[in-house]
Amino acid sequence: MKKIVLLRHGQSEWNLTNRFTGWTDVDLSEGGLNEARQAADILKANGYQFDIAYSSYLKRAIRTAWIVLHHLDLAWIPVEKTWMLNERHYGALQGLNKAETEEQYGKEQVQIWRRSADVSPPALEADDPRNARFESKYHALTDEEIPLTESLIDTEERVLKYWNHYIKDALLHNQHVLIAAHGNTIRALIKYLDHRTSDGIIGISVPTGIPLVYELDDDLNAITSYLLDKDGGKNPIQST
Amino acid sequence: MKKIVLLRHGQSEWNLTNRFTGWTDVDLSEGGLNEARQAADILKANGYQFDIAYSSYLKRAIRTAWIVLHHLDLAWIPVEKTWMLNERHYGALQGLNKAETEEQYGKEQVQIWRRSADVSPPALEADDPRNARFESKYHALTDEEIPLTESLIDTEERVLKYWNHYIKDALLHNQHVLIAAHGNTIRALIKYLDHRTSDGIIGISVPTGIPLVYELDDDLNAITSYLLDKDGGKNPIQST
Repeated sequence: MKKIVLLRHGQSEWNLTNRFTGWTDVDLSEGGLNEARQAADILKANGYQFDIAYSSYLKRAIRTAWIVLHHLDLAWIPVEKTWMLNERHYGALQGLNKAETEEQYGKEQVQIWRRSADVSPPALEADDPRNARFESKYHALTDEEIPLTESLIDTEERVLKYWNHYIKDALLHNQHVLIAAHGNTIRALIKYLDHRTSDGIIGISVPTGIPLVYELDDDLNAITSYLLDKDGGKNPIQST
Repeated sequence: MKKIVLLRHGQSEWNLTNRFTGWTDVDLSEGGLNEARQAADILKANGYQFDIAYSSYLKRAIRTAWIVLHHLDLAWIPVEKTWMLNERHYGALQGLNKAETEEQYGKEQVQIWRRSADVSPPALEADDPRNARFESKYHALTDEEIPLTESLIDTEERVLKYWNHYIKDALLHNQHVLIAAHGNTIRALIKYLDHRTSDGIIGISVPTGIPLVYELDDDLNAITSYLLDKDGGKNPIQST
């Protein structure tokens, strides 16, 4: 039996100011650092070991991975970082305060952007300073690859591309895999692994700082999944 | 012109108890964490950027790299970790208190082990629990690769093997390279880059927490080297 652990990073500095984050590279807050340590404690108490970790290009996920690996005495294992595990791109909403956005566009419209699978928020203009093309870490990406906005389905597509090209291979080689990533990245993987529909994933709320474990058979079909607690308890993931 | 930055990790928990460390995977002390932050401040004040970082399999070097990259907002770049950049293996002396060792073997003998290029300390027995073969992180190494003790020249050989196979290539591809490593690993690189003799390297004392910069020509010959300070000052490395 193969196991993979999905871990959503905890609170970032923008959670405190209630702004849309997306690809904005905001750091973890003190609370977020503590959530990473909490996840590490849970994994340690349950004797988890990893051969490789994956994270996005965003520091809130990378630092979560680093903290976990340090606490498990696994700092030496490879940490593969990729933009393809970045949080969903939130387009022109990135950086805006959520309450102000609701005032401007209406609560219902914001709800549609957040809760639909195939609707994207307004796109960034190409010359918007928030465009990722201006960040050196994305310099190797083509114009087609750099999003100006994304629907949940767009996010899923790139996440699964990375899964199929890299993560799958590690699992098939019997590596124990940790993925430190974001709410929508992990949702995409849950949808794929559980064969859920887009509607079936919208209401899923992935908790932060709690390892989500998938047990897979040799063909990488999910046998079972659960949120792990410190005493080895296996709790179901919640839907709203 | 190409540049490479060599950074020796700072104080570890065993510096406090004055024990031989070598491949023992001891963590940084609070002072060592501060030295890493100090190095990061120096690099930041001088506008340094990196495309790739290398470190050993030992957490005191890895965490030094992580701290520097975090402070430079470069957490996303690849960090390649390798046993070949590990500190010199100190054989049966690993874990022993330095004063006690001098009492047991004589101060002169200990001085020979520490200061000769081609003399190794007593080897570990194969079944010694300190043998790296019992650590999962070295499971992919052959018996010939896992040292039971090393002379400075043995250390140099593996460091240069790694340099020639990996680091050189990154430099030839114009990547800005950071190496976070150990006193003897960095000495080996200084010897190689400066074309020094074994005798000429023995007295070199590589400071901790201060970036050592080498400027190289297109064929990777050293043009100049210096210890960088926060105001952009370039100071020579000291020999005893």
